[in-house]
Amino acid sequence: MKLNLTMTEKLIYQAQIYVTLRPSVLDPAGTAVQSGLQHLGYDNVEQVRIGKYIELTVSAASEHEAKEQVDRMCDRLLANTVIENYRFDLLEQQPSINK
Amino acid sequence: MKLNLTMTEKLIYQAQIYVTLRPSVLDPAGTAVQSGLQHLGYDNVEQVRIGKYIELTVSAASEHEAKEQVDRMCDRLLANTVIENYRFDLLEQQPSINK
Repeated sequence: MKLNLTMTEKLIYQAQIYVTLRPSVLDPAGTAVQSGLQHLGYDNVEQVRIGKYIELTVSAASEHEAKEQVDRMCDRLLANTVIENYRFDLLEQQPSINK
Repeated sequence: MKLNLTMTEKLIYQAQIYVTLRPSVLDPAGTAVQSGLQHLGYDNVEQVRIGKYIELTVSAASEHEAKEQVDRMCDRLLANTVIENYRFDLLEQQPSINK
């Protein structure tokens, strides 16, 4: 006997999201870190840019659905798209089946 | 005629550094973001953790040297290793030759 789990099976994805300042936007925090590194003797360091790295898990019926949802989350809340870019990877986790 | 550039040739690497909170450390910012996402209707999101993503370029004589230097920078300044973990990738850029 085979159970039809199509409607209840959900896939879990881990999204790894990178939010970075657009290249044209100044990054005072990055400049401060670069200056701090130079004070520690690392004068071979340049172009320090500081962004956010967000991990979250999302359950969805398909990878396509998860991708669309994470894209909307970034656009609406996680990134300020006026000054920031974002990109993300999705990693499939163990599936959870709600019987 | 071949010039000996061994002593002056420097390789440029871009380091992509991920600084994340240790799993045992609470992440109030992540909890706030998760709550924000739920208010927007994304109740299929869990385990939101917020870290830093740092890009910088470093010039060094070899990949080994660059790796050691970036590791020390993370340990000394970029990450607080009491509560944070870090990892990084190095990407080789165009070489710059100081004649």
